[in-house]
Amino acid sequence: MKSASTCSLLNRYDQFYIFTHVRPDGDAIGSSLAWGRALRLAGKSVQIFCPGVIPDKYLFLPRAGEIRDRVPDGNGAVPAFVLDCSDLNRLDYMKEKVQELGEIVNIDHHVTNENFGDYNIVDTSSSATAEIIYDLIGECGFKLDREISLCLYAAISSDTGSFKYENTTPRTMRIAGNLLEYNLNPSVVSRKLFDEYPLSTIMLLRDALATLRFEEEQKIAWMSVTAEMIAVNGARPEELESFVNYVRNIEGVAVGILFYHTGNGETKVGLRSNTVDVAAIAWELGGGGHPRASGCTISGDASTVEKKVIDLIKVFISENGTPAVE
Amino acid sequence: MKSASTCSLLNRYDQFYIFTHVRPDGDAIGSSLAWGRALRLAGKSVQIFCPGVIPDKYLFLPRAGEIRDRVPDGNGAVPAFVLDCSDLNRLDYMKEKVQELGEIVNIDHHVTNENFGDYNIVDTSSSATAEIIYDLIGECGFKLDREISLCLYAAISSDTGSFKYENTTPRTMRIAGNLLEYNLNPSVVSRKLFDEYPLSTIMLLRDALATLRFEEEQKIAWMSVTAEMIAVNGARPEELESFVNYVRNIEGVAVGILFYHTGNGETKVGLRSNTVDVAAIAWELGGGGHPRASGCTISGDASTVEKKVIDLIKVFISENGTPAVE
Repeated sequence: MKSASTCSLLNRYDQFYIFTHVRPDGDAIGSSLAWGRALRLAGKSVQIFCPGVIPDKYLFLPRAGEIRDRVPDGNGAVPAFVLDCSDLNRLDYMKEKVQELGEIVNIDHHVTNENFGDYNIVDTSSSATAEIIYDLIGECGFKLDREISLCLYAAISSDTGSFKYENTTPRTMRIAGNLLEYNLNPSVVSRKLFDEYPLSTIMLLRDALATLRFEEEQKIAWMSVTAEMIAVNGARPEELESFVNYVRNIEGVAVGILFYHTGNGETKVGLRSNTVDVAAIAWELGGGGHPRASGCTISGDASTVEKKVIDLIKVFISENGTPAVE
Repeated sequence: MKSASTCSLLNRYDQFYIFTHVRPDGDAIGSSLAWGRALRLAGKSVQIFCPGVIPDKYLFLPRAGEIRDRVPDGNGAVPAFVLDCSDLNRLDYMKEKVQELGEIVNIDHHVTNENFGDYNIVDTSSSATAEIIYDLIGECGFKLDREISLCLYAAISSDTGSFKYENTTPRTMRIAGNLLEYNLNPSVVSRKLFDEYPLSTIMLLRDALATLRFEEEQKIAWMSVTAEMIAVNGARPEELESFVNYVRNIEGVAVGILFYHTGNGETKVGLRSNTVDVAAIAWELGGGGHPRASGCTISGDASTVEKKVIDLIKVFISENGTPAVE
């Protein structure tokens, strides 16, 4: 077992660094905090790093505010755990610092992981890196406590969309059940992760829904958001994150689109489907992604870009059809 | 154990009826279908009844279309399982029929259950009646199959809001994990239960969000929907079900309100909060509910009703404050 050699590495050092990826999500933050806490409970000195800002919504996790965005100089051979990163480029401006450190332990669940570590604990059947950390804590004989459980539970819930996504397995549910034993409140965690948004988000949603349009007997549906709409509502572009799902979730819609006209001559296009391979569509437009969730960025006049994308999807649907789900 | 006597009842009869409540939810339907299937696999003859229509969103559950809304005459002493009902009034126009039948087995998880059965299997620590059915299937030595697992999983997911609500326990998660072993796709089930809506719903949401208003430094927020708005969008009043949550989920909002002006001189008021006892507010307005989710119906002119409710909440907040959550 690969984690056995990791447990022996742990015996050889007293100090460790933990790194996670740029634009961190709940799994990146929760897994890092949980692993850091487990190491500290085992008597180790630990610092956690992330290249960039921790989003406000994750600051309810204990010690999330202590995650650092700068690596100090003169570290010597401190071993580095790199969590939830498919490759070292995910560490953005911290990449070179990590390569100057000691041994690298790569802990991840992405199918695209490049096994870049001196040790690689990669399990693509895990819904979240947090599932791997949960096992590792057990295998190393470390303790779980409420703080670790909260961080791991939030990480798993975050990466499975509250146990809705296809990556949710029987094991995912059983681990989450074991974590809930530590007196966690799933309602409070879920609200923080999923169900709370600033006023600006709902005002922006209101304006976005007013732009909802359809073509091809409502098989294609889209909303168009402009930089002005974001500014008027005091919102930030990140608040658009889930908007395209409002389009995708309409019955009968095969492809849901969110156009975000950034105001600098570019349009960011989000594509979602329950039935159509939108990765193939994004690919033709110079983007990429997953079969059900993809995106691309296109330069040009707003209405020209919209027409180009919609026309391509029309052709795609007429050639490939829109198969029923299940 | 109470279920032991139920298992013995099962040996004494070959035919059973299963009843569940009016305006059935996912737990009512899923539990009934699962228990019916388990009994049939054990060689029993079973019919399932529900007073009223099964909502479209649940028709993906196997055999949901076979649930009957009329009880035939001349039944004799057929034993009746009554599922997910706190009292017999929940059976609406079927109540008397059930009382004319044979022995009644009351299987439920509501704290308000009146133990109305000849046998009562009531477990208020269960997130859903489906958890009790899961145990009962095991205790009676019945088989689980994919169809039963799908129905039980959907029932539990439905009653816990995809494992978000406070009623979600470690046991809930472990049962759901065991059910997922039967090759279920949590993504497909979740979409059916939570993430799919007719076009009319999103158009109505668009119009509802355009009415979003605030008072008291945004501690009170509300939307106002009229019968005309519902008609114009080809929607039905049931589609308003989750709208008040869009108001409640805004950061800083203490009380979220949905006013539905029905057009016949009445306004239905939905109240939601994460911090304030809205049951007490609804009580003063002649309604009722839970501390975090309540409602009432008020007669009168639309704007007068809105002012009355908002003024009362203002007084309530000034007297009781808006405590922070956690």
